[in-house]
Amino acid sequence: MKNISILGATGSIGTQALEVVEAHADLYRVCALTAHSNAKLLISQAQKFKPDLVVIGDDQYYAEVKAALPGIKVLTGQQALCEAAALPQAELVLTALVGAAGLQPTISAIEAGKDIALANKETLVVAGDIVTQLAEQHGVKIIPVDSEHSAIYQCLVGEEVNPVEKIYLTASGGPFRGKDREALAGVTKAAALKHPNWTMGAKITIDSASLMNKGLEVIEARWLFGLDPDQIDVIVHPQSIVHSLVQFTDGSIKAQMGLPDMKLPIHYALAYPGRITSSYERFNFMDYPEFTFSKPDMHTFRNLQLAYHALRKGGNMPCIINAANEVVVNAFLNDQIGFLQMSDVIERCMEDIPFIEKPSLDNYLETDSYTRIFAGDLVTKQAFLTQNIKY
Amino acid sequence: MKNISILGATGSIGTQALEVVEAHADLYRVCALTAHSNAKLLISQAQKFKPDLVVIGDDQYYAEVKAALPGIKVLTGQQALCEAAALPQAELVLTALVGAAGLQPTISAIEAGKDIALANKETLVVAGDIVTQLAEQHGVKIIPVDSEHSAIYQCLVGEEVNPVEKIYLTASGGPFRGKDREALAGVTKAAALKHPNWTMGAKITIDSASLMNKGLEVIEARWLFGLDPDQIDVIVHPQSIVHSLVQFTDGSIKAQMGLPDMKLPIHYALAYPGRITSSYERFNFMDYPEFTFSKPDMHTFRNLQLAYHALRKGGNMPCIINAANEVVVNAFLNDQIGFLQMSDVIERCMEDIPFIEKPSLDNYLETDSYTRIFAGDLVTKQAFLTQNIKY
Repeated sequence: MKNISILGATGSIGTQALEVVEAHADLYRVCALTAHSNAKLLISQAQKFKPDLVVIGDDQYYAEVKAALPGIKVLTGQQALCEAAALPQAELVLTALVGAAGLQPTISAIEAGKDIALANKETLVVAGDIVTQLAEQHGVKIIPVDSEHSAIYQCLVGEEVNPVEKIYLTASGGPFRGKDREALAGVTKAAALKHPNWTMGAKITIDSASLMNKGLEVIEARWLFGLDPDQIDVIVHPQSIVHSLVQFTDGSIKAQMGLPDMKLPIHYALAYPGRITSSYERFNFMDYPEFTFSKPDMHTFRNLQLAYHALRKGGNMPCIINAANEVVVNAFLNDQIGFLQMSDVIERCMEDIPFIEKPSLDNYLETDSYTRIFAGDLVTKQAFLTQNIKY
Repeated sequence: MKNISILGATGSIGTQALEVVEAHADLYRVCALTAHSNAKLLISQAQKFKPDLVVIGDDQYYAEVKAALPGIKVLTGQQALCEAAALPQAELVLTALVGAAGLQPTISAIEAGKDIALANKETLVVAGDIVTQLAEQHGVKIIPVDSEHSAIYQCLVGEEVNPVEKIYLTASGGPFRGKDREALAGVTKAAALKHPNWTMGAKITIDSASLMNKGLEVIEARWLFGLDPDQIDVIVHPQSIVHSLVQFTDGSIKAQMGLPDMKLPIHYALAYPGRITSSYERFNFMDYPEFTFSKPDMHTFRNLQLAYHALRKGGNMPCIINAANEVVVNAFLNDQIGFLQMSDVIERCMEDIPFIEKPSLDNYLETDSYTRIFAGDLVTKQAFLTQNIKY
């Protein structure tokens, strides 16, 4: 029986992880559940899975959650989140928080010696050097839950002695694949939220449409697998069956494949290094008689180019791109700015925010905060300009 | 420095293996070379690689080889082949003989405790139960060189604890993919020898055109990976980039890919469990923007169906199909019978030759000999009939 803490239990990954736990109640037990503000769902999850600790991030819901869960320890706030991450009885911590908010709880879990099932790529994007070094110091495994990185991780099993020549991260291309900048200028939030293959949360779905998700994944892969930027390639594969590929130094390539279902990589991260028999629908070649591949259009989808630039530049640049992106995605979801303006704001942040070559954790946190303010101002200006041009 | 014996050095696999050895002379040394009758090439290989032992199978060339290689031990005959297979200083024996002739030397190598790089699938087709049991008894690894089985083997590395749900062996479909029986009736030897993707010896190229190669591979996979016939599927993939796939019980699929170059799996078998940096051309998605997949046409290419039948029936049936196939391929290459008549003769052998449920090694050898005589008679009759209908 493996004890698991789930940080971000009410999101897309969190709820799917609980489905996996429920289907294998003989193997897994949930010892902590946390959520930011979805108190209702968190309460019903806690009533069902009976964890030892429940944390509601936003303290305005604390009384409600506390009252609904007699006999369960309920806490609120950032410190409580770190407590859930470091819970003594947990063997594995699934970090499924959205954005840079995942950084500090993940660090707490690592410092407490917990293996991490990482669904929060922003943690590695923001402070990959610090996080991976800590994991090494504490002998902690970081098992990726992102389907692409899970694919690479699966391909590397048993190949520990064999250096990687390069990896290919596959990208569906999102709902706007094939469109040019002119077409993208006017796309709506509703269109951007319609991912052709994957069912995911709102933030990552917009990131997929703008290719920023792939950019963040490139940075994540750099840290997870210890690669140079030039060893990481992105290939557009609209069918989303090949989840990613590794090329070894003998020229041999290994790929991991399957239907696009996030439960599969979640399942793998919980069971690693084992695999547990699942009842999920199986891939069938007759449903996918053709796989296609093409280069990503980095001219139209500038975010991917910006992410490569941030990775090559290093220092706090990936932290800047990540924070700026969180702000612009939010602004796009609130109809404040257009689709293409997202890249404009991000680029401006990358140009104007002070670069730090070897940031400390505090530097990262400061960069994150400052970028949010700076990007917020830019968004306000852009929104003002857009409105004044429009009307 | 790994000492390697190469059985069948002058064939397609043998010569490519020597190229690999030559490119990595710091890692590998050839201690024995054998050939059936290509004395000239064997002599020049021996002069270059300076093995401890050279065996020429056909004794009419013995004097020539002996005279050309002063200072090297030269032998001839079947017993000498087994001696080469069991040479004390060899750590790995590459069995690249053609057909059932590979069986006894492979058994000698296993009994001498040598790891096997198996390029001779017929060994496992003919007597898979005996060979795999012997390998287990002697703690010997059988590392497949067939590209499909090498792919599966590579996908299974590190997954030892995880049961396989099913495997997919990919098939190019050969030069006659998409043709119907009417079109196949008149195809020439020259057309059958033109494989679209792979450069191989004549026997395996004809087997590829008739899908018998895939049938033999299905039987080979059953023994190499301990699977039931229902766990082995064949999928036509004309680009020959995905070399084969494994599906685990969680639904996840791993595939091995690369350009169709036999040196890659040879390289892997020599280096296993390591991988050695190679200078071979790398796969590039831009050259293969589309992978396609379809079901094999078992109605037109009956050999594949016959092979599944033989595998399900078990006993000496795979031995019968293999021996009959060797006879008919030879007859087709000698213009004695037509393309479709190959399956007819094989099927007749399967129906008429006495079935043995639990054959001993002697039973296998007897079945092999008897089938060759029986199939040879059928070929003569078919050839006679064909000629008398024609003229």
